[in-house]
Amino acid sequence: MRMYDIIEKKRDGKELSREEIHYFIEKYTNGEIPDYQASALMMAIYLRDMTTEERAELTTAMVESGDQIDLSAIEGIKVDKHSTGGVGDTTTLVLAPLVASVGVPVAKMSGRGLGHTGGTIDKLESIPGFHVEISNEEFINLVNKNKAAVIGQSGNLTPADKKLYSLRDVTATVSSIPLIASSIMSKKIASGADAIVLDVKTGAGAFMKELEDAKELAEAMVSIGNRVGRKTMAVISDMSQPLGFAVGNALEVKEAIDTLKGQGPEDLTELCLTLGSQMVLLADEAKDMEEARAKLEQAIKSGKAFEQFKLFIESQGGDPAVADNPDQLPQAEYQVELPAVKTGTISEIVADEVGTSAMMLGAGRATKESKIDLAVGIVLHKKIGDYVKEGEPLLTIHSNQEKVDEVRDKLYASIKISDSDQKAPSLVHDKISQ
Amino acid sequence: MRMYDIIEKKRDGKELSREEIHYFIEKYTNGEIPDYQASALMMAIYLRDMTTEERAELTTAMVESGDQIDLSAIEGIKVDKHSTGGVGDTTTLVLAPLVASVGVPVAKMSGRGLGHTGGTIDKLESIPGFHVEISNEEFINLVNKNKAAVIGQSGNLTPADKKLYSLRDVTATVSSIPLIASSIMSKKIASGADAIVLDVKTGAGAFMKELEDAKELAEAMVSIGNRVGRKTMAVISDMSQPLGFAVGNALEVKEAIDTLKGQGPEDLTELCLTLGSQMVLLADEAKDMEEARAKLEQAIKSGKAFEQFKLFIESQGGDPAVADNPDQLPQAEYQVELPAVKTGTISEIVADEVGTSAMMLGAGRATKESKIDLAVGIVLHKKIGDYVKEGEPLLTIHSNQEKVDEVRDKLYASIKISDSDQKAPSLVHDKISQ
Repeated sequence: MRMYDIIEKKRDGKELSREEIHYFIEKYTNGEIPDYQASALMMAIYLRDMTTEERAELTTAMVESGDQIDLSAIEGIKVDKHSTGGVGDTTTLVLAPLVASVGVPVAKMSGRGLGHTGGTIDKLESIPGFHVEISNEEFINLVNKNKAAVIGQSGNLTPADKKLYSLRDVTATVSSIPLIASSIMSKKIASGADAIVLDVKTGAGAFMKELEDAKELAEAMVSIGNRVGRKTMAVISDMSQPLGFAVGNALEVKEAIDTLKGQGPEDLTELCLTLGSQMVLLADEAKDMEEARAKLEQAIKSGKAFEQFKLFIESQGGDPAVADNPDQLPQAEYQVELPAVKTGTISEIVADEVGTSAMMLGAGRATKESKIDLAVGIVLHKKIGDYVKEGEPLLTIHSNQEKVDEVRDKLYASIKISDSDQKAPSLVHDKISQ
Repeated sequence: MRMYDIIEKKRDGKELSREEIHYFIEKYTNGEIPDYQASALMMAIYLRDMTTEERAELTTAMVESGDQIDLSAIEGIKVDKHSTGGVGDTTTLVLAPLVASVGVPVAKMSGRGLGHTGGTIDKLESIPGFHVEISNEEFINLVNKNKAAVIGQSGNLTPADKKLYSLRDVTATVSSIPLIASSIMSKKIASGADAIVLDVKTGAGAFMKELEDAKELAEAMVSIGNRVGRKTMAVISDMSQPLGFAVGNALEVKEAIDTLKGQGPEDLTELCLTLGSQMVLLADEAKDMEEARAKLEQAIKSGKAFEQFKLFIESQGGDPAVADNPDQLPQAEYQVELPAVKTGTISEIVADEVGTSAMMLGAGRATKESKIDLAVGIVLHKKIGDYVKEGEPLLTIHSNQEKVDEVRDKLYASIKISDSDQKAPSLVHDKISQ
């Protein structure tokens, strides 16, 4: 087998065999195939696409390129959730205790990552005492005992994907459906998930700006998952404005607590119920989506979900009192309200710009070395479709610096108030199962 | 400017600007752009194509990446000829003295190269005493005095093309019309040609097997040439069987001498008259193709072309007596005739296989280090469409080894004799000017 022939075949739009895909991934990972041949193949895949079979094989080959987490010691069906990323996405913080409270085991491996705010671990660390430095054994025991635990990523997962992603990043081959889909799915599968729920974001604040592209990506991932024996479902959700009200680490933890108590933002609550229902269904804890949703609504209403959150926090060293009194979370020194400059209806809140504003305040990492300020961020008071009077606060900036002129200007520029009526964008555009 | 954006633009099928193309070529040549970005761009170009403007800019950028030969001290319009390569292509040996004899200056830079037989210089070196180790000054003086001279390639011509070609060769991006066309044209232009005549081969023995592809390549090159101010014309000629009868170095020199005397193979003579007419026309030595052809026919008939050959040989140290007595050329020890195994009409002579057979005898170089045997090769006695009786010789193998079983078997397998009538393939499929 020769890499040249593999490139030529894909260049001519033909389907690569299982053997060819595994040969490429294995030899590229161990350095026998040079970057310049891999990038030619990536561009050929970008422009020629891959069949369903090829995508599944690429995913499997990447999974097999490194370590695979074994979660078999955990009882029940392990369902993982993945979001393609947006602004103010607090769903993981809500979903973990919520679905655990109805019997779905949540064994969450999470990272810190780069972005507008920190990763799930960073956010949870704003709770005094909470830590993720636990052994694998302890992690598994905790999930079996309490149904939910979070651990930092360890092991050499999908090295092929890491190497390919770095290459794609500098050769304009990132935004390819088969390559994105296999990259995401390989990471989830290597992390030990039995079943996967995907939250594919669409709109101005998402990677997939267009609904059609988001749908195509979701279908590609669902197809890969089911083909490699992991039941997979997806939700296409709106990211034309930030999700919920809070963008920031401690601010999002507070919002998650509110949501678990049944007092959260309407859109965040709805998305958590939708994604959570898919998770419950895939875990075989309900016979259909209606029953799954009813269980989750009941868990919120009864306080079971909230109690599960406290148990989860306490079992990893955190102070559960925070849940009852979120003021104990890190607080920013300055709270600056932005009053509306005119009366009307909110017609636009550019999610990306709100995210960048949070990052400028210190809520996220620009490089791996950046230190996060857990207290800072932005809390919206109005969303698209809301009526606002001149002088009424649009949002509050939580900052540890007194001077916030630049962030304020950016936020003003990203929010539009219209004289005419505006409808709130619909939150869940589509649901995709096989 | 960023290479990433250039790759992305071409990936999306957009036209690259002059500045982008020159930026890429300059930075890739000096090593600032890595191979893996260049190969992604090559694949994008392969699959997205280039506009006429882009092709011309790529050619110019490659010309400017290295040395450019200055032939301005030579009087008249310098017309160069390029063939895309075939088997038994003796045209250069005939054309140089032929067009020089009617007043077209021929300043030929040539290489040794790899292939079925040696390059033009190797072939000419089968004439005792002939050498190409002359100074640039001497070269120019010779062309001004005698209208024709040959010199070995020197200088660092089109390093960008060399580097890109090596990369394309291992990334399945060689067979791309815009990339082949700009590669060939950049070399011709850097060599100092004022005008260019192209012989694009098509058929089983050519790189371009299909007529349509050959035509597209010819049109691409003619378009580039004329766009960058070098008058360019092309002939699409047949390479479904070898050109002429001889395949080998000294054997082809003998065939060239015969042709200059008016006693050469019909197809070789016709192709030389066609290509030569275009050269004479582009050199402004005739008002139209008819006048150009008449001049060349007259030069052969009158013996002027033959005398020009002798002058050319003598002026570079060769023994002109060889022209009158070609038996003085290197002779192979063994001459083995292949008799026809049946009576019928020749329906196929696979050019590639005949070329490979010549190489197996030692006529060509497999690697740069291979030594060529100037005497050996193959002389056909029959061509497609010829009638042959059982036992009549199809061809003669000229070998310096007694045992030629392998070559004989290969040649027998490559020649088909049919019971039905067969037409000789037409030689010149098309002529392309602007």
